[in-house]
Amino acid sequence: MNYKILLENARKNIKSCRVCQVCDGKACKGEIPGIGGKGTGLGFIRNYEKLREIKINMDTIYSLQEVDTSIKLFGKRFKYPIFAAPIGDVKLNYSDFFTEYEYQKAIVVGCKNAGTIAFTGDGVKDYVFKKPLEVIGENDGWGIPTIKPWKKDEILRKIRLAEEKKVLAVAMDIDAAGLALLGMQGKPVSPKSVDDLKEIIASTKLPFILKGIMTVKGALKAVEAGAYGIVVSNHGGRVLDETLSTIEVLPMISREVKGKLKIFVDGGFRSGLDVFKAIALGADAVLIGRPYSIAAYGGGIEGVEFYTNKIGGELHNTMIMTGAKDLNSIDESMVTIVK
Amino acid sequence: MNYKILLENARKNIKSCRVCQVCDGKACKGEIPGIGGKGTGLGFIRNYEKLREIKINMDTIYSLQEVDTSIKLFGKRFKYPIFAAPIGDVKLNYSDFFTEYEYQKAIVVGCKNAGTIAFTGDGVKDYVFKKPLEVIGENDGWGIPTIKPWKKDEILRKIRLAEEKKVLAVAMDIDAAGLALLGMQGKPVSPKSVDDLKEIIASTKLPFILKGIMTVKGALKAVEAGAYGIVVSNHGGRVLDETLSTIEVLPMISREVKGKLKIFVDGGFRSGLDVFKAIALGADAVLIGRPYSIAAYGGGIEGVEFYTNKIGGELHNTMIMTGAKDLNSIDESMVTIVK
Amino acid sequence: MNYKILLENARKNIKSCRVCQVCDGKACKGEIPGIGGKGTGLGFIRNYEKLREIKINMDTIYSLQEVDTSIKLFGKRFKYPIFAAPIGDVKLNYSDFFTEYEYQKAIVVGCKNAGTIAFTGDGVKDYVFKKPLEVIGENDGWGIPTIKPWKKDEILRKIRLAEEKKVLAVAMDIDAAGLALLGMQGKPVSPKSVDDLKEIIASTKLPFILKGIMTVKGALKAVEAGAYGIVVSNHGGRVLDETLSTIEVLPMISREVKGKLKIFVDGGFRSGLDVFKAIALGADAVLIGRPYSIAAYGGGIEGVEFYTNKIGGELHNTMIMTGAKDLNSIDESMVTIVK
Amino acid sequence: MNYKILLENARKNIKSCRVCQVCDGKACKGEIPGIGGKGTGLGFIRNYEKLREIKINMDTIYSLQEVDTSIKLFGKRFKYPIFAAPIGDVKLNYSDFFTEYEYQKAIVVGCKNAGTIAFTGDGVKDYVFKKPLEVIGENDGWGIPTIKPWKKDEILRKIRLAEEKKVLAVAMDIDAAGLALLGMQGKPVSPKSVDDLKEIIASTKLPFILKGIMTVKGALKAVEAGAYGIVVSNHGGRVLDETLSTIEVLPMISREVKGKLKIFVDGGFRSGLDVFKAIALGADAVLIGRPYSIAAYGGGIEGVEFYTNKIGGELHNTMIMTGAKDLNSIDESMVTIVK
Repeated sequence: MNYKILLENARKNIKSCRVCQVCDGKACKGEIPGIGGKGTGLGFIRNYEKLREIKINMDTIYSLQEVDTSIKLFGKRFKYPIFAAPIGDVKLNYSDFFTEYEYQKAIVVGCKNAGTIAFTGDGVKDYVFKKPLEVIGENDGWGIPTIKPWKKDEILRKIRLAEEKKVLAVAMDIDAAGLALLGMQGKPVSPKSVDDLKEIIASTKLPFILKGIMTVKGALKAVEAGAYGIVVSNHGGRVLDETLSTIEVLPMISREVKGKLKIFVDGGFRSGLDVFKAIALGADAVLIGRPYSIAAYGGGIEGVEFYTNKIGGELHNTMIMTGAKDLNSIDESMVTIVK
Repeated sequence: MNYKILLENARKNIKSCRVCQVCDGKACKGEIPGIGGKGTGLGFIRNYEKLREIKINMDTIYSLQEVDTSIKLFGKRFKYPIFAAPIGDVKLNYSDFFTEYEYQKAIVVGCKNAGTIAFTGDGVKDYVFKKPLEVIGENDGWGIPTIKPWKKDEILRKIRLAEEKKVLAVAMDIDAAGLALLGMQGKPVSPKSVDDLKEIIASTKLPFILKGIMTVKGALKAVEAGAYGIVVSNHGGRVLDETLSTIEVLPMISREVKGKLKIFVDGGFRSGLDVFKAIALGADAVLIGRPYSIAAYGGGIEGVEFYTNKIGGELHNTMIMTGAKDLNSIDESMVTIVK
Repeated sequence: MNYKILLENARKNIKSCRVCQVCDGKACKGEIPGIGGKGTGLGFIRNYEKLREIKINMDTIYSLQEVDTSIKLFGKRFKYPIFAAPIGDVKLNYSDFFTEYEYQKAIVVGCKNAGTIAFTGDGVKDYVFKKPLEVIGENDGWGIPTIKPWKKDEILRKIRLAEEKKVLAVAMDIDAAGLALLGMQGKPVSPKSVDDLKEIIASTKLPFILKGIMTVKGALKAVEAGAYGIVVSNHGGRVLDETLSTIEVLPMISREVKGKLKIFVDGGFRSGLDVFKAIALGADAVLIGRPYSIAAYGGGIEGVEFYTNKIGGELHNTMIMTGAKDLNSIDESMVTIVK
Repeated sequence: MNYKILLENARKNIKSCRVCQVCDGKACKGEIPGIGGKGTGLGFIRNYEKLREIKINMDTIYSLQEVDTSIKLFGKRFKYPIFAAPIGDVKLNYSDFFTEYEYQKAIVVGCKNAGTIAFTGDGVKDYVFKKPLEVIGENDGWGIPTIKPWKKDEILRKIRLAEEKKVLAVAMDIDAAGLALLGMQGKPVSPKSVDDLKEIIASTKLPFILKGIMTVKGALKAVEAGAYGIVVSNHGGRVLDETLSTIEVLPMISREVKGKLKIFVDGGFRSGLDVFKAIALGADAVLIGRPYSIAAYGGGIEGVEFYTNKIGGELHNTMIMTGAKDLNSIDESMVTIVK
């Protein structure tokens, strides 16, 4: 496996995504279906660009110890704090190359083989939720299904399906609440109150992760609702145009809720340095979306494993260059926010 | 009706405007006649660009109620706080496709059908004022004629003409006061003192709106003169080059005069998100100019109605994504000014 | 005369300068000989760009009076505070189209006809100083010769020549002090101490202007030396690369020395709005360089007169749009510095 | 010798480097081997770009004295504070044009002839360290070998080799500590503790310079370890992507350790003005890397001497334009940090 060849293969196998040199949201802006950000595309683009404004403070005068990149979550230890973000309905958004099952298998098993874990997606059509769940079931529950904010019965039904597969945790992308298109196809979504969420979360013993938090207020409501964790996310810029980037709201949110729940973040993370920055600014772990699809289309299970180790290796190297021996040692003093 | 086809038709029917992917003032800079900003074009360009620096704070954890986008003004209720800005003499500025009457009918009736209202224009030649007034008369006074700052007699004469048509309100684009070209054609314009304006405003029972306010000082003088409202506007960058953008002076002006008169704003607003931002920063309603012309040339009455509902729908969606149940609920905490 | 044709003619008659749509120092950067800024060209480019960050605060609610753009200097009244900056040795820097005498005649007489005045240049070869002086002599001393910081005897000799022609004032571009090239051609220049300058200034009854001041410290030394005025100038970026822009040091300098001597400024001024900005930020008058050459090559005497009235007209219009009845009424409250 | 021809020759003789008009890290980003910055290349690019934000405060009103650009270091006086940065293994990174010996001879002798000194490099293969050392030996020890942070024995062995050649000083690029590639080739590098460094530094009487300091903390550790000097450096962006630029950390570091050890800096310095800026912000001297290679490939020994005098001449001129009579007179008041 070689990253250059992986990218070349991905270019052949994907129709919508150009597999740009830099995945920054510019070429694909406005392309939905497809993989772009909504409208001006600035939600996606800003995610990438604001990460460029976090710089690493290099210091190699220290006594080297073994560097440990692992993290413990849901009672399990993962090799890196790097997880695949939920992406679904891939024939619609990417190409005909993979069936939903094949795609999700590449992602779920590739992450598992690399020692991390994948979030999986949901959609109007039932197979978008069920196919990844099938793969997760075949892999001892090693995956995190993500449910859209449907009507309560539908949510609870899907949580039950997930429990049957003994998944490690379950998530809800609450920021999909404004997708009127889903309602037009007969499956309305809507915002959920703290009470709604309390009831949903209380219905399962699974750790419950709320994805799509972009404000301190939202994060505090997630704590109140009893969530195991949040994903600071603007849905890759696909549900609302012109939001802030996730990396700029992360420190504000972390300052308020760190320790009360786990903080994941996604949006434009493209290297192990970016993962390092997120952790320095208060995240526990990072989700990566579009590049994982490229890895899957470019190299299948192996490609996903390779990509995870590539990003993980970069994180490891950044820790050496800053003197951080484990994830807990990565702190704000190791980065500088510029401009 | 479909926005892509509307834009394609507009490209065919307009001569001066390129109907760019993004209407940001760059391609047409300096083109007067035509639809550009004056000189460097930076007045228009900055309007668009500074709006990009207002971000929406997404939060979908709340209990959903019916979302109400309507606003009451002049004793009437409008479906959205989105009005067409005055544009006139369209053969000169756009193309031969429409007579003045046909163009203004598309705008006035299209807005009315969508539940909002159009401002109409004025010029050296009498038909530029009278043709839209004719349309407004045919539609129960559903329109707001805008008079240039001519000599007092001429202004009063035009107010009388407007009253005869039972218009809902009347406006004056006081920022046209420096257009020497009008004087050269025998119809001089000039700045007006607060006393001048008091006399003009006192001459009619119609709500009187002063368009072209860009400073707190100017807004306070409008209050003193007894205006019903102001339009924070730099005339789309067409009367003075290198002004500030309207969105950056809006909060300063709103802080001083909110509640004392109605605050409209125009300049570079291109989406329902932009309308949301204006309201969050203190506007009551938004005027949109050039894109309404594109809608008219691209789809006539229907195009204008379609466009209004498109922008209104985006406003509605943004309110869902932030938890604002009506326009009064939209406040500064729902946006972040960046950069 | 028409500005478009003037520019087209200039494009034909000049060899080095591209007569760009916008004269901002980018196309010609590093071109010396030629008309570019030195090195990276950033001294010139920044002059233009920082002017874009000064915005005009439009307000047309006031009682209009006659607008007066005139200024009194050297006991004379000028129609506008807009003067031609010294440019010399035009065969070297522009093209063979004009002899030095022809070029300087276009500039000196054109400015005089428009009611303003031109500064003229100096160089290693004597004709660069003497030819413009000849033109000034033919026009009742209506011009300001600018002398390089040569050895004292040479400076005094040139002041005497200027006095013979009854010039209105004399200037020295003290920022040419580092041009080693001049020394290599046998005519060394050097910095001058306050005492040196006192002696030089005391040697003549002519008002003496020090050109090339970029710091408060330098301005205070000019006051101490007894200068009539200073020109805040970085020599169009041609004597030292990577200085600040003149518009950004102007307010600091003005705050310290305003009223103690006259403050001129040059560097990237391209419109009457730019002139307005300089005056709002503390200048008494503005010098314009390269665009005057374009006017001369594009239209001779008439071109220079036309150009002066064009810029002056823009200043006049800006005063109407802000309510400034004369130059003294233009103050800092009428502009906003952004970014 | 002529700089234009030097550049043209360099373009012929180098394979990897495009010898751009401006050497700013953009064209070659990510090219390793080659001469680019790592990953996004932003470490290199930012070095160049942040230097553009330091402006020179021009003032030529003063009494001129002889300008002295020289500096005393290691008990020797150098004509300029401008040294060649260590670059090695040139067949791998540049082209086949030079053997390692030929290249290093051009650099070492060219610098010596110009009155300054060169740092030389190190690598996995022994000749990368030994060939330049051979040249230094042939030139009375006039050079500074730079050793990678190998295992201690290897470092001490190389220091002994350097001592035998009577070099003026020895350096270690401690920021190479994360280059896993070296370990894969059987020569592991690693971070060094203060105690490690104390032992290494105590092992020799040579002045010891630690290269690759980017934080105040790191600089204080270098003081504690007994270093003669540090090089504020991000290794031209080649060891860790997305660091700060060196010019922006320099003032912070200088404020803490100036006077306790010598402060060198490298990264994107391209002119004598840039050297002036570094000294104004607290550096004692500057290292220049890639442009020295271009000088060597473009003109051999003579090219390197020519280039050194070119940059030194620019420094000299900048001192005239600011009134600095020697390096100690260059202070923070002579520059302005903008943006």
